[in-house]
Amino acid sequence: MLMRSSSLFLRTLRDDPADAEVDSHKLLVRAGYIRRAAPGIYTWLPLGLRVLRNVERIVREEMAAAGAQEIHFPALLPREPYEATNRWTEYGPNLFRLQDRRENDYLLAPTHEEMFTLVVKDLYSSYKDLPLTLYQIQTKYRDEARPRAGLLRGREFVMKDAYSFDIDAESHAASYTAQREAYERIFTRLGLPYVIVAATSGAMGGSRSEEFLAPSPIGEDTYVRSAGGYAANVEAVTTPVPEPIAYDDVPAAHVEDTPDTPTIATLVDVANQRVPRADRPWVAADTLKNVVIAVSHPDGEREVVVVGVPGDREVDPKRLEAAFAPAEVEQAGEADFAAHAELVKGYIGPAVLGPNAGGERDLDDDGRVRSGAVRYLLDPRIVTGTRWVTGANEEGKHVFDLVAGRDFTADGTIEAAEVRAGDLAPDGSGPLELARGIEMGHVFDLGTKYSEALGLTVLDQNGKSRVVHMGSYGVGVSRAVAAIAETYHDEKGLAWPVAVAPAQVHIVATGRDEDVFAAAEALAVELDASGLDVLYDDRRKVSPGVKFADAELIGLPVVVVVGRGLADGTIEVRQRASGVAEQVPVDDVADVVRETVASLR
Amino acid sequence: MLMRSSSLFLRTLRDDPADAEVDSHKLLVRAGYIRRAAPGIYTWLPLGLRVLRNVERIVREEMAAAGAQEIHFPALLPREPYEATNRWTEYGPNLFRLQDRRENDYLLAPTHEEMFTLVVKDLYSSYKDLPLTLYQIQTKYRDEARPRAGLLRGREFVMKDAYSFDIDAESHAASYTAQREAYERIFTRLGLPYVIVAATSGAMGGSRSEEFLAPSPIGEDTYVRSAGGYAANVEAVTTPVPEPIAYDDVPAAHVEDTPDTPTIATLVDVANQRVPRADRPWVAADTLKNVVIAVSHPDGEREVVVVGVPGDREVDPKRLEAAFAPAEVEQAGEADFAAHAELVKGYIGPAVLGPNAGGERDLDDDGRVRSGAVRYLLDPRIVTGTRWVTGANEEGKHVFDLVAGRDFTADGTIEAAEVRAGDLAPDGSGPLELARGIEMGHVFDLGTKYSEALGLTVLDQNGKSRVVHMGSYGVGVSRAVAAIAETYHDEKGLAWPVAVAPAQVHIVATGRDEDVFAAAEALAVELDASGLDVLYDDRRKVSPGVKFADAELIGLPVVVVVGRGLADGTIEVRQRASGVAEQVPVDDVADVVRETVASLR
Repeated sequence: MLMRSSSLFLRTLRDDPADAEVDSHKLLVRAGYIRRAAPGIYTWLPLGLRVLRNVERIVREEMAAAGAQEIHFPALLPREPYEATNRWTEYGPNLFRLQDRRENDYLLAPTHEEMFTLVVKDLYSSYKDLPLTLYQIQTKYRDEARPRAGLLRGREFVMKDAYSFDIDAESHAASYTAQREAYERIFTRLGLPYVIVAATSGAMGGSRSEEFLAPSPIGEDTYVRSAGGYAANVEAVTTPVPEPIAYDDVPAAHVEDTPDTPTIATLVDVANQRVPRADRPWVAADTLKNVVIAVSHPDGEREVVVVGVPGDREVDPKRLEAAFAPAEVEQAGEADFAAHAELVKGYIGPAVLGPNAGGERDLDDDGRVRSGAVRYLLDPRIVTGTRWVTGANEEGKHVFDLVAGRDFTADGTIEAAEVRAGDLAPDGSGPLELARGIEMGHVFDLGTKYSEALGLTVLDQNGKSRVVHMGSYGVGVSRAVAAIAETYHDEKGLAWPVAVAPAQVHIVATGRDEDVFAAAEALAVELDASGLDVLYDDRRKVSPGVKFADAELIGLPVVVVVGRGLADGTIEVRQRASGVAEQVPVDDVADVVRETVASLR
Repeated sequence: MLMRSSSLFLRTLRDDPADAEVDSHKLLVRAGYIRRAAPGIYTWLPLGLRVLRNVERIVREEMAAAGAQEIHFPALLPREPYEATNRWTEYGPNLFRLQDRRENDYLLAPTHEEMFTLVVKDLYSSYKDLPLTLYQIQTKYRDEARPRAGLLRGREFVMKDAYSFDIDAESHAASYTAQREAYERIFTRLGLPYVIVAATSGAMGGSRSEEFLAPSPIGEDTYVRSAGGYAANVEAVTTPVPEPIAYDDVPAAHVEDTPDTPTIATLVDVANQRVPRADRPWVAADTLKNVVIAVSHPDGEREVVVVGVPGDREVDPKRLEAAFAPAEVEQAGEADFAAHAELVKGYIGPAVLGPNAGGERDLDDDGRVRSGAVRYLLDPRIVTGTRWVTGANEEGKHVFDLVAGRDFTADGTIEAAEVRAGDLAPDGSGPLELARGIEMGHVFDLGTKYSEALGLTVLDQNGKSRVVHMGSYGVGVSRAVAAIAETYHDEKGLAWPVAVAPAQVHIVATGRDEDVFAAAEALAVELDASGLDVLYDDRRKVSPGVKFADAELIGLPVVVVVGRGLADGTIEVRQRASGVAEQVPVDDVADVVRETVASLR
């Protein structure tokens, strides 16, 4: 493929787009790869589309190697299958919903578990048909509240989603491993460093799941690792639960005046002044912070919940979200407080919460309060015998020596407190380090959630009906384009790995000498004929400086400059990423370019 | 590529799907190529997806050869650009509309003129940038009132849409020709016979347009051809207008009792009984039939219109639709008649219609009646001096010797009467023949409709701003799959041309002999290694009869049967389409298969 700059539909931009925050977004727009059509919705220009197709090709090859078969579902789907699994509701405002001219409900599919389950149910009926793994590379839709970072979090995006179907958990494990290994090969070929971390399942349901994260400071996900090999998304980190503590010697709880102490810091100060401890000063970790949140359940109900954490830790919004998914969570507002007069802002304590409040109390199967005090959930560190300073439910008053298990209990525990560097891994493998990453892939053991909901069974060897065990496996294909750009760029522009570059070679002809353009043209034709993809900057009346800047911005792996050196019989061959350049005799240049490209593969 | 029936995600069906009317739909479902997800919305199974990709590949190659550059737009688009061209409204109920979580209006794009216009406006500004042709292969959406015939008229479908941008009409003509010629090559390579016919522009706007139709009795489009070379969609056929006739000798119009004559047939009978003509009997062609229709304009207004045609011709609904597009047309209902008491069903005549009714009369720019009698449009054959029997606007009465131009006029003419075999071509090239076809491609000269609406201008050589001249060019990619299936099948199943077949070779191993399966496997591997795509039916315990029937149904071009003959050292090589079969020595079979495939290309 030979593209000429004089006719290629491309204009590089000098300025960063106003809405771009991260480098990949800025550069992909400035270098003419993508263009915004609406928030989180992008148009692929010629160079961008070539990168996308290269990513898709690699994904396809590895799916085929893993024995997965490609099919293709519509994006526009009827409501019914998603109703059967409750995802029509659970997806909440993230789902694009619409009606057709007959007022039937449709959606733009965010993911296709239901449809894959149904097509297998349609065609297959016997254990002999399994195992089976199907996949598609398809355009998906999610009405993100905050689309951001260009292709990294879009509302229309390209995903590879695969689904495995097995007779039992043991067989499923092999299908899961095959996809997991395919993912390792895919991200390696894409040049994307990755870590595999334990994850939560979110709206997908199912049991086990792991994420492939590309480490990046601009990633939306935070993950932890221990030296001993533990790795997890912070959302999935569980807190090692301490042993209960004897509390026989703890004095009875006592309420103290603590005026003007609506925050933990003010409370610690006042406590040290007015109720000093003998052994050491009070610290934030001695306090129990009760955070009021509002949970919007998929069925539309809004529930006020109080989460108690040690006062030296914040509640992590993403962990909180994961703990309540598919419900959505936000800070409680004035209306929520107004509806619960017992909650005295800044002085909330266990006495008015959950089972401590006394009176009639009725919880449903989901743990939601049908009548009685608001639901109260505690950080797992707050075990029996721990002793706390916390709110006395009265303006300016706190209670001291309040002992968990003696003076209060909760409706349950919750993993919502922030995870910190140095916290211990739950598997005993040592202290945790934190880092950020971009979620590139996600593999799920779905168990039988979808096959049960939609009735996908097969007959086993004994003629007995068995519910099929499923897995689901996603790769963000359009997101990978951005993640690669984020990984491979410098201040001058992009620097694509050969495997995904829109072309391998950028030939730049400089000056006005006809011989230069003739030599550049001949080289472009020769390289094209030998199977390389070439972008030839054949523009007249464009300065060398502009051409060089464009080449750096566009970021093809090998840049060939045909210019003044030609008079001396040489052409420059430069590697975009390393900057390594050499002057090559004209007769050797095609060979050197081919070798250089090969060396970069 | 080597696919094995034992693991391929494929089940052939014995029975036609209940909703299928045409052969391609029945066979594509029965042979396991596609599956219905919702009305007009289909899932591509492995074999179907391979055919689709083959069609896409051919389209891409020919687009590249014609100098068109590929980009890719989102399917989910904001309302604004479509509002600017009025297509948000004009598309009426055919457009899928939705809102995002912020209640902004979006649509699922039926075609992308607006977005292409805007992206060129964004990037280009000079005559030097032109000519330019861009295209995409993309999923499109139309909320068809009557999705039918499987992939032939779907609601989610794949199209190639290309757009050309030129400085003037002359340059546009070259871009138009380049696309038109690419289409000829595409349909030739796809094995689709085609005719190119003049067409109307519909919702697209613009001036000249031509359709590529694949002749087929199940096609939705009717087209005409003359021996002299005229070819047009019936929607675009214009009626040669007769010369006016002198009417000095025609007696004054006279009303006659014609009881019980609500139809043309009854009217002719009664007229011949009660008001006989001296020279010859009355015939249907002597009568003027006034048909009442209801026009739904894009702005929501419903207008009653009367169309007058010679009584021996029906009004053709598709010509009527084309004449009123983008408005929609239906038969007038009871409410429409109730709103117009002057319209006496079965006896409607010009006296109460249009300008003949007298009284105040006010038409707007579109010709719609703002006040006064209902709009009256006449077939072009009803020229001045023609003499008619028609309704007298009173139950049981008709008026005779009513002369056009003397006794009545109309608000205009309309091309809505049916076109019949034998009618004369408007260009004088002789009588017309009629046939049906499937619309496979459509090329449009858009003129400046979109560039004007969206402000796409460039500076010319003299620094003057010029509105860009555009063209638009569509190929129904998913529809082509169905059209090819419709063209290449017999009572036993599909029979794909090599260029688009999901694989070229179907190897069938029969019986229980291990040697047979070993030989078949070896052949499959060898053919795969030599670059052919092979489907190998390696199923055990499936009868030869079932395997042969599957091979005929699936329709790969070359079927290789490894079975009993193997003991004698031969394997059968059969061509699916012709049925020609030969027994080939085992050692030669790979060569013979390769030669056979090559001979069919």
